Amino acid sequence: WALRPPGRRALHGASAAFQEAMLTSERYRVRRLPFSRLADGDVAFFERLMPGRVITNPEELKPFNVDWLKSVQGCSKLMLKPQTTAEVSQVLRYCYERNLAVNPQGGNTGLVGGSVPVFDEIILSTVFMNRIISFDKVSGILVCQAGCVLEKLNEYLEEQGFIMPLDLGAKGSCHIGGNVATNAGGLRLLRYGSLRGTVLGLEVVLADGSALDCLTSLRKDNTGYDLKQLFIGSEGTLGVITAVSILCPQKPKAVNLAFLGCQSFSKVLETFTTGRAMLGEILSAYEFMDEKCMELVEKHLKLSSPVTGSPFYLLIETSGSNSTHDEEKLNNFLEQAMTSGLVTDGTVATDDKKIKARTRGTWFTCISLIRQTLWSLRERITEALTHDGYVYKYDISLPVGKLYDLVTDMRARLGRSAKNVVGYGHLGDGNLHLNITAESYSHSLLDAIEPFVYEWTARYKGSISAEHGLGFKKKQFIQYSKPNEAVLLMQRFKAMLDPKGILNPYKMLPSS
Amino acid sequence: WALRPPGRRALHGASAAFQEAMLTSERYRVRRLPFSRLADGDVAFFERLMPGRVITNPEELKPFNVDWLKSVQGCSKLMLKPQTTAEVSQVLRYCYERNLAVNPQGGNTGLVGGSVPVFDEIILSTVFMNRIISFDKVSGILVCQAGCVLEKLNEYLEEQGFIMPLDLGAKGSCHIGGNVATNAGGLRLLRYGSLRGTVLGLEVVLADGSALDCLTSLRKDNTGYDLKQLFIGSEGTLGVITAVSILCPQKPKAVNLAFLGCQSFSKVLETFTTGRAMLGEILSAYEFMDEKCMELVEKHLKLSSPVTGSPFYLLIETSGSNSTHDEEKLNNFLEQAMTSGLVTDGTVATDDKKIKARTRGTWFTCISLIRQTLWSLRERITEALTHDGYVYKYDISLPVGKLYDLVTDMRARLGRSAKNVVGYGHLGDGNLHLNITAESYSHSLLDAIEPFVYEWTARYKGSISAEHGLGFKKKQFIQYSKPNEAVLLMQRFKAMLDPKGILNPYKMLPSS
Repeated sequence: WALRPPGRRALHGASAAFQEAMLTSERYRVRRLPFSRLADGDVAFFERLMPGRVITNPEELKPFNVDWLKSVQGCSKLMLKPQTTAEVSQVLRYCYERNLAVNPQGGNTGLVGGSVPVFDEIILSTVFMNRIISFDKVSGILVCQAGCVLEKLNEYLEEQGFIMPLDLGAKGSCHIGGNVATNAGGLRLLRYGSLRGTVLGLEVVLADGSALDCLTSLRKDNTGYDLKQLFIGSEGTLGVITAVSILCPQKPKAVNLAFLGCQSFSKVLETFTTGRAMLGEILSAYEFMDEKCMELVEKHLKLSSPVTGSPFYLLIETSGSNSTHDEEKLNNFLEQAMTSGLVTDGTVATDDKKIKARTRGTWFTCISLIRQTLWSLRERITEALTHDGYVYKYDISLPVGKLYDLVTDMRARLGRSAKNVVGYGHLGDGNLHLNITAESYSHSLLDAIEPFVYEWTARYKGSISAEHGLGFKKKQFIQYSKPNEAVLLMQRFKAMLDPKGILNPYKMLPSS
Repeated sequence: WALRPPGRRALHGASAAFQEAMLTSERYRVRRLPFSRLADGDVAFFERLMPGRVITNPEELKPFNVDWLKSVQGCSKLMLKPQTTAEVSQVLRYCYERNLAVNPQGGNTGLVGGSVPVFDEIILSTVFMNRIISFDKVSGILVCQAGCVLEKLNEYLEEQGFIMPLDLGAKGSCHIGGNVATNAGGLRLLRYGSLRGTVLGLEVVLADGSALDCLTSLRKDNTGYDLKQLFIGSEGTLGVITAVSILCPQKPKAVNLAFLGCQSFSKVLETFTTGRAMLGEILSAYEFMDEKCMELVEKHLKLSSPVTGSPFYLLIETSGSNSTHDEEKLNNFLEQAMTSGLVTDGTVATDDKKIKARTRGTWFTCISLIRQTLWSLRERITEALTHDGYVYKYDISLPVGKLYDLVTDMRARLGRSAKNVVGYGHLGDGNLHLNITAESYSHSLLDAIEPFVYEWTARYKGSISAEHGLGFKKKQFIQYSKPNEAVLLMQRFKAMLDPKGILNPYKMLPSS
């Protein structure tokens, strides 16, 4: 996904789109479950436990009750900001006994309404759990608390010659604990794989307050079931992640970018196959976007693309350990792509050692600016879409050859009832972000989109949520991607680990 | 691990070591649980279900009752060879109702006694489930039945320009289902990551015979808990894996090998840090072995090493997409390692395009022979050890800097009561294979080794089983690597998914 959250202040001014968006939550017809209601004695208990880190002021609570897309809103009356795992344990033990529902919250950058309360759940924020516990330069293993901001971790690592194995548009706000809880994908998955391989250990507090220490820092450990896997991607419904151990790759010595124009989606695909073969082990991102995306980015954010006039655009990144070799590979690939007509236009940002050596800092700033600008065209599409009106968002996995057919079919189906139907995403991972905008929210437009989009996806054995998760907004659609027996088994796991259902209720699993 | 199982015939002649080895199972003092005993009616039922694929002849059953190391032996009276998932379902549904215990078995190449029955469990073999279901050349995703032999899959993929993401010494016998069930590591983990990232989907039959279809072929899918993860590495105790979907990397265009001698373990470590930085994305294996290993390989297998006279040896492999670039990287690294005195001697096997072009097939055979010979020195250590006497095997994860200290300490501790104490393994993954040989099995030697080796490992927060699993032989030691709460939770998962405990009993988890 490509999300660049605005500062918190932006959330305070409720726009027209905001008011309309809230209506959508009605569709779910969810009733509050019989959890206890917050009493004065509860607040007093928490005040004693963590003085000064208990928020009850409704104004202060507001931004944490609303998701970044302003699509769902809860009415929590209490936010807690623990600093330690012991405090999280004490909070959950108390809530479990009192039958108080809890909404774990990281950077609140989720796109499916999973990170905000639905009713009056207590918000348990990881914002003060932002300590780096250790980093080992030999193994590249980082251990840190769950509330560390992804970008801060990356900056810390870069100083030591390493990087985080994941990167996403929300990096400036999202917490690593939230990333793990939602199994975040993002821009580097193609190269460094998913969090299921890079997360080596977790510390988790269960619903009853007991802490589960699986915080090992070993690349290999086959002693019993890999319990931590159950919490990766569980969206806060099985436990609260309090600390993470993660394997970090070395910082690449050379990073090159190519921004290319293609005349058809079949050429986009062919360019991918060619690029994968010729760039091999240095290919680190292969993103695509259609011309509608570029129009919106130019119109709403005033960004201008260096390449124009093509129906499709590609952003290809290489990361490697030898800039001469990498440039040679990239140049060979580009020559091949140009001469065989796969690509019609393009621009490249490469580190040129000779030039860099001559001009030093100046050129370095320049090249990194070019890179940032090119990435912005891709990363800020989500932001541009929010300026275009009300947005219907879909995050779909499909066999790569089928990826764009869904956009074409949807565009034909909706005709003029939609303002824009756009497609972009992580082509290398078979992950399409399908977005539909309209002047305002309408039930009839939604009915034209859903369940059509889910049925279409299920027909090709795709996933209705590639990386965003199910959260509150998609949980009723899980059966389009998972068989009944799997959903039943998930519900049994949930019942076993959280028998009272206090952890992030109304999320991820359909009401049974 | 590095295991090269002999042909099945080799298992028939019970050696002296074999008889002694069997004694070790006494140490575990396991009692048969009150499962039903096999009756004539049961065999008749299975004969009707899968005529001709029901083995009851004791001679035929023998090799499947004994593990490859000849260290544990069961007395199963029945082996079943289903061909389809439906048959596995029917078998388990019947066994579950009848309360008959079942031992799922793949290639029977495990090293911890997990793959053979302990008492009279029915052996459920995947040997006839060896069908490739599909392979997609665009995505590189292979879907196949669980009984496919790893090496056969790799050969099939190589023809299409891909390879399996894992490789291990037992490749000629082991089944992919067994690899997944034991979360096999092996020689390519450093490069392609663990099965937790590369396995995209599984089909599993649960203890009660119900099939769980999680056999998706998507790189990303965040719809609910990732159930398949629980079965990866569960050693057949939670369900029987019947089919696997796995992401396969492209076949590298260039593969180079360097076999080097180092004068101390600290130089081995420094060479690793240097190599990781200079070889970067093309580094695909970083194996080490001590001089004792080389002595045993030379003595028992008559293999001769091209490099001699060093206390430590390294086998470094690179795999990449451009042979010129790869050779340049390797040469730069070797020059640096030689001139700075990290490495004192070495030999290299590289693809040289020019020479290859001139001599064609001949040279290709030649280079691949050299490569095979160099790999043999590493891969056949396990085999050489079995010729040295009774072997006490340990498979340990440790912080990489501590890796060899355990070998040194053990050698000092055992003195002349052991014949040989050797260390080798996957240095890049922090994985040590510690092996101790003696003329014959002895209780007192075992008591000198255990629990010392586990306590030592626990002190440095290592894992007492990096990749071999716990099986039957290590299950009582799980608490050295996992806290109590984690073990209790594992037992709850086991009880939930297999309430009668019929699946691979006496394995992995300690008796509660």
